[in-house]
Amino acid sequence: MNDHAEAPVLPVEAFEPPYYVAVFTAVRTPDQSGYSETNARMEELVRDIPGYLGMDYAQSPGGLAITVGYFRDAEALSEWRTNVEHRAAQKRGQAEWYRNYTLHVAKVERSHGFTRAEAPQGPPAG
Amino acid sequence: MNDHAEAPVLPVEAFEPPYYVAVFTAVRTPDQSGYSETNARMEELVRDIPGYLGMDYAQSPGGLAITVGYFRDAEALSEWRTNVEHRAAQKRGQAEWYRNYTLHVAKVERSHGFTRAEAPQGPPAG
Repeated sequence: MNDHAEAPVLPVEAFEPPYYVAVFTAVRTPDQSGYSETNARMEELVRDIPGYLGMDYAQSPGGLAITVGYFRDAEALSEWRTNVEHRAAQKRGQAEWYRNYTLHVAKVERSHGFTRAEAPQGPPAG
Repeated sequence: MNDHAEAPVLPVEAFEPPYYVAVFTAVRTPDQSGYSETNARMEELVRDIPGYLGMDYAQSPGGLAITVGYFRDAEALSEWRTNVEHRAAQKRGQAEWYRNYTLHVAKVERSHGFTRAEAPQGPPAG
């Protein structure tokens, strides 16, 4: 079974404020060797942080990559920021994978979500 | 001349905190008729808001679209949120263009940027 291929993409939901977002916007270098393995390991690590809420990711082909991480409080973010493996990955990112990046860490004051009302999916009435 | 095609993609820079981010994460519907015209008009409008700082955008093919807007203060964001044309576009987005979205509005507490030191681009010394 391959659940990944079938799961619909969904944005991370709106949580009850306050919570934190870490907005990471980056342009990558042409040499991405080792990136995907490290990225998979970082995703594994961050899920173990108490207070980690989720992550959104998008990358335009040949363009900007945006990662948004959601955390319950400043303590959760601080634990992630100071994680030893994460720091080593950041160093390698600066040396090899990123041409430019910006990180914005911000406290969410309000949020809301929207989900389209779908047509009923049950068997036809007739 | 087509400056757009030649300008390198760059993430919006880190500003001096505090400032605001509006993180909009969305999955679109298959029917995007009228979207790009409205989106272009919104980009034009938001640039006229005093305190608008910039915007980052990325979309994974067939996946999530992330837009991050940057604003100097809550007043700038409020002016954008209550703009009449913007509100009409939001309504149309809910009716036609978006399957799901989440909006997180947050006050930036810290930020930093990284730019790779490039190899010198002058003529070869030899």
